Amino acid sequence: MEAFSLSLFSWAIPLFGLIGFALAYKLYVGIQALPAGNARMQEISAAIRDGAIAYLRKQAQYLSMFIIGAFLVIWWALQLPTALAFVFGAGSSLLAGYLGMKSATLSNVRTAQAASEAQPGQALMTAFNGGAVMGLSVAALGLIGVGVLFLIFGTPAHHEPIIGFAMGASSVALFARVGGGIYTKAADVGSDLVGKVEAGIPEDDPRNPGVIADNVGDNVGDVAGMGADIFESYVTCLIGCLALAATISVADLQTLTSYAGDPATVESYKIWLMATPLILGLLGSIGSFIAIKWMSFLKDGDPAKALRTTILLASVLFIIASLGFFLVTPVNVSLWIPVIFGTFCGIGIGLTTEYYTSSKPVYEIVNASKTGPATCVINGIAVGFRSVTLPLIIIVAAVLVSNSFGGVYGVAIAGVAMLATTGIIMTIDAYGPIADNAGGISEMAQLGKETRDITDKLDALGNTTAAIGKGFAIGSAGLTALAVFGAFTQSFPAGKVDLAITNPTLLVGVFIGAMLPGLIVAFTMQSVGKAAGLIVTEIRRQFREIAGLLEGREGVKPDVSRCVEISTKAALTEMRAPGLVAFITPIAVGLVMGPAALAGLLLGTTIVGVVLGIFMANTGGAWDNAKKYIEQGLVEGEKKGSDAHKAAVVGDTVGDPFKDTSGPSLNILIKMVSILALLIAPVLAKIWIS
Amino acid sequence: MEAFSLSLFSWAIPLFGLIGFALAYKLYVGIQALPAGNARMQEISAAIRDGAIAYLRKQAQYLSMFIIGAFLVIWWALQLPTALAFVFGAGSSLLAGYLGMKSATLSNVRTAQAASEAQPGQALMTAFNGGAVMGLSVAALGLIGVGVLFLIFGTPAHHEPIIGFAMGASSVALFARVGGGIYTKAADVGSDLVGKVEAGIPEDDPRNPGVIADNVGDNVGDVAGMGADIFESYVTCLIGCLALAATISVADLQTLTSYAGDPATVESYKIWLMATPLILGLLGSIGSFIAIKWMSFLKDGDPAKALRTTILLASVLFIIASLGFFLVTPVNVSLWIPVIFGTFCGIGIGLTTEYYTSSKPVYEIVNASKTGPATCVINGIAVGFRSVTLPLIIIVAAVLVSNSFGGVYGVAIAGVAMLATTGIIMTIDAYGPIADNAGGISEMAQLGKETRDITDKLDALGNTTAAIGKGFAIGSAGLTALAVFGAFTQSFPAGKVDLAITNPTLLVGVFIGAMLPGLIVAFTMQSVGKAAGLIVTEIRRQFREIAGLLEGREGVKPDVSRCVEISTKAALTEMRAPGLVAFITPIAVGLVMGPAALAGLLLGTTIVGVVLGIFMANTGGAWDNAKKYIEQGLVEGEKKGSDAHKAAVVGDTVGDPFKDTSGPSLNILIKMVSILALLIAPVLAKIWIS
Repeated sequence: MEAFSLSLFSWAIPLFGLIGFALAYKLYVGIQALPAGNARMQEISAAIRDGAIAYLRKQAQYLSMFIIGAFLVIWWALQLPTALAFVFGAGSSLLAGYLGMKSATLSNVRTAQAASEAQPGQALMTAFNGGAVMGLSVAALGLIGVGVLFLIFGTPAHHEPIIGFAMGASSVALFARVGGGIYTKAADVGSDLVGKVEAGIPEDDPRNPGVIADNVGDNVGDVAGMGADIFESYVTCLIGCLALAATISVADLQTLTSYAGDPATVESYKIWLMATPLILGLLGSIGSFIAIKWMSFLKDGDPAKALRTTILLASVLFIIASLGFFLVTPVNVSLWIPVIFGTFCGIGIGLTTEYYTSSKPVYEIVNASKTGPATCVINGIAVGFRSVTLPLIIIVAAVLVSNSFGGVYGVAIAGVAMLATTGIIMTIDAYGPIADNAGGISEMAQLGKETRDITDKLDALGNTTAAIGKGFAIGSAGLTALAVFGAFTQSFPAGKVDLAITNPTLLVGVFIGAMLPGLIVAFTMQSVGKAAGLIVTEIRRQFREIAGLLEGREGVKPDVSRCVEISTKAALTEMRAPGLVAFITPIAVGLVMGPAALAGLLLGTTIVGVVLGIFMANTGGAWDNAKKYIEQGLVEGEKKGSDAHKAAVVGDTVGDPFKDTSGPSLNILIKMVSILALLIAPVLAKIWIS
Repeated sequence: MEAFSLSLFSWAIPLFGLIGFALAYKLYVGIQALPAGNARMQEISAAIRDGAIAYLRKQAQYLSMFIIGAFLVIWWALQLPTALAFVFGAGSSLLAGYLGMKSATLSNVRTAQAASEAQPGQALMTAFNGGAVMGLSVAALGLIGVGVLFLIFGTPAHHEPIIGFAMGASSVALFARVGGGIYTKAADVGSDLVGKVEAGIPEDDPRNPGVIADNVGDNVGDVAGMGADIFESYVTCLIGCLALAATISVADLQTLTSYAGDPATVESYKIWLMATPLILGLLGSIGSFIAIKWMSFLKDGDPAKALRTTILLASVLFIIASLGFFLVTPVNVSLWIPVIFGTFCGIGIGLTTEYYTSSKPVYEIVNASKTGPATCVINGIAVGFRSVTLPLIIIVAAVLVSNSFGGVYGVAIAGVAMLATTGIIMTIDAYGPIADNAGGISEMAQLGKETRDITDKLDALGNTTAAIGKGFAIGSAGLTALAVFGAFTQSFPAGKVDLAITNPTLLVGVFIGAMLPGLIVAFTMQSVGKAAGLIVTEIRRQFREIAGLLEGREGVKPDVSRCVEISTKAALTEMRAPGLVAFITPIAVGLVMGPAALAGLLLGTTIVGVVLGIFMANTGGAWDNAKKYIEQGLVEGEKKGSDAHKAAVVGDTVGDPFKDTSGPSLNILIKMVSILALLIAPVLAKIWIS
């Protein structure tokens, strides 16, 4: 028992969080110093930034009412520290999104500028560093938040407030993802439908009144929404594992640590297991930081390889460091196996995602597009459902192996390992929309074909790396849900809750849980459709009423602010219903039907959510690339504007809310519902367990 | 204890099956006597019939190898009677499809003839009676098959062969549904894509080389495939409930019957519970028969109301008769509550299906179609996912109520009650494709607009009633799966298998089970896409190479047999992979990972299968009607050929395999996997339970 070293680790966690912030700030200042382009570029970039800030402010205002309400309810139902931690988590999540947006809107225009100077390496580096600011910030926020709470509440008996932190992060992430997802896709789909399809003008053409809203959307959805999302994934998996350790049985303690049976030391061993996920997070962050720094040696080689190398480097460093950790602490080294499997499980799922969204299956979709939009959609859906099998097999393998090397706690550790390198995963994920925006700015500022070619290449690369990021998000959602599920079931005295699948109450819960993901998908898809319709009507109106706009007459400008307003309002209005359903259903089922039904609900939501989540993400990604491959001339006999291309555009448009609204919302839903259940477990125990 | 009356009932079951067959034959002869139209109509009708017979023969040949192989394996692993019953069930299932096809191809042309004589009442009656031949045959086949086996093997200890019968029916149904579904949708989608979209000629135009294949498809998919499907649903729910009764605990026996605790009479009470589902099937068939006869009094009123009245009448008669049954037998009358809830659960789900596929949501899709195919597809998917909630709530309510009035056995009884009136459900389901084909024949034989108007109305009606039929199919699949699941878990000694959802092996099974439905959807969607592509290429070729065909030059005919051959070959080739995956996965999981994993698999497949099944059926139905509403002029400002109509055609085409291939395949998958698990339970017990 080395109590000293535990306290050393415990302090190192938030401390490294602070260091991460400092590093992020240094990168930020470095980006700021880069040339920000000509007046037109700065004007566009300012419009995008202002729109994004305005939306995030309004979103924060809207959410503050929810956060205050939830704070009061949690205080009333549980205790003040938990309620405070909830607000802390919610605030951190909002901050994660805000910081990401700030950094992305800073670097997009500078990336475009570097491209216009014909410096592809510098452009890549700027976009990457913009992502790194966000990656480091998200990891730092997580380490500080969870780390500080662990210093205060890091004991098996009093860890409840830490769960409150996860709940706060999850709640905000769900709303931010749904709202941001609706915003970005409404603007994107709406602008494309009128601009590209009806008026026949290019994407991001400055004449299109929806084009600023579209670019704002990238920042509030794909950047801020994703930031809140990954922050949530990160802290939920750490805290889920921690909560599981807090309620672990003595038998498991003996398998997982060097605990020898002395009752006086039980608690300190448990605390070691509680700290382990946090320390793994710390080690992963250090690995990520080194990988981010390493990028400067890679920037002039093949960019795709460079990005992949950084992920691999961070993973390998993390795995080696974690071996060291297991060897010097009382935590059993057998847990190293789940760490390895978890890390490669994320990469493995990412590779399958890459295969289904950028390889042979995409060409099948392109082929099907030749017979029209219907066969394009049919084939895409077939590819999407096929793509569910391999990731599930990988998850199953990770669960089986991790379980045999550490029980449910091992499964949780695998989930932690998957997200420990969040710093680099987030960096690469955030890189995508920055490159995308850089392309948009180049187009709007009419920087010419050479510039656009460079940004297009950076953008295409972002699509592939985003696939890997999605692999981590989905895989970790599944494993984290299982871990939190384990912690939830351990919250009740053994044998008091009938958790057999033959219990009809539990089965009913499974059915109810199974309908939640579909409902979220329905709400979000419908909202995107509705909001896109509003944008379509507005753009058509402007094209009709503003004389000379469509013809590109000198000095005639679209009223871009109307589209920004419409998207903002629609997103904020539409995000409430799905969010509330996701909150109220589990609470109602738990209170009215009891813990067994709620356990069933968690299972139902997890299973259906994982299947639909993978399906929607991959289908959308595959359609997106089918369209892009035709545009890039990779398909013999097809080009932009051909019938197959038109069909592929339909597929891509359908896929937009699949991959950027509904799919990601499901990932959060799965974890949010689990954490919510875990949080209300003490209340349920009081009511239902006599 | 009235042993005499049990034996009376037992003999009545197959006896009424024979009577049902006689009644079906009488109806058949009556239809045969009706005028069969002019030479052109008879020629077309003969081509359709010959194509359908040829396909079903080839399908039977293909399946015979599988059946013989499975027979040998079952004999080797279990026992000869089970293997023989398997063949009996498989043969009955094939026969059910064949008889339906015979009757449908007889009545379609006669329905068209009645319509051409401007006799809508007679046309309705002919199509209805054609359906009734099938409805009566399917119910009769079920009662004879299960009834005879019950007479021989109707004891708790030796009922295994009866499960073999269900397994045979399920296996053939899965292949028939998948194969028939691929055939019909490949021909339909392919013909429409070239004919309607590219060449701009009407549906069922005689110039289209794919038009006969399309009509053959209706008969092998929507008639024969559905016949095998509903036959399977019917016998599986009866047998699932029977198997559950055979392994019921003494405590449950005391709640469910008047059993007073005398060990000598345990078995006879159990047999009463085993017989109950069969007797309910008998009573439902009698109710259906009366309702079918009643139709002749309704034929001249509102046809939609007439069809609905027959279902309601059969249900009410069945409910009253079942009360009588419970009152005069030792089976507890409390089971009457599940009977009532089960019956109305089917109707309730049917009504929600009707709402989502023919009401406000359809107009939302129409509205979305105005902004193009992409928003049409997005909105349709949103409607489809929204439509999952209400049916699941209805199922949950039925499960909760039935469970509190009879435990898992009560849930099984609710499932039986839902399908007891299969005679009338099948009648109304089969009516749809007959009316559809009558329309096709009218068009191909150029019988004029008046005739087509009558058949169009009959056809539109079929869409709505088909929705109700689908409600029964989906609801019963869910409840039957739960019942068989209960029987499966009871097959192992209590406490020997860890069925808690905290058992990682079980959870892994859930994940594996959850991926099966997606895989089946992927396979079937892809097969339809692939086969439709072949048809498209062939039709394009004929339009190009056969001079004068597209211009409609006198005497120039398309080579329709090529399309029939292509569809036949594609369907038979493509049906194997999904079928085999569905068989091998549960067996492999059971053998390699044990009964707990297999139980998890059943749960995962059921949950995801029910959700996706409802989603696909309703999305497809809603798209279909969105297109039809525009065509029928129900939408202000839109008509055939408008942009919104074109967008809706895309939705409809995507929806075709949703509702007629993948969706129905999922319904069978759920039950097939459960029955398969139940069948191999003794083998697993030998291997895994020491």
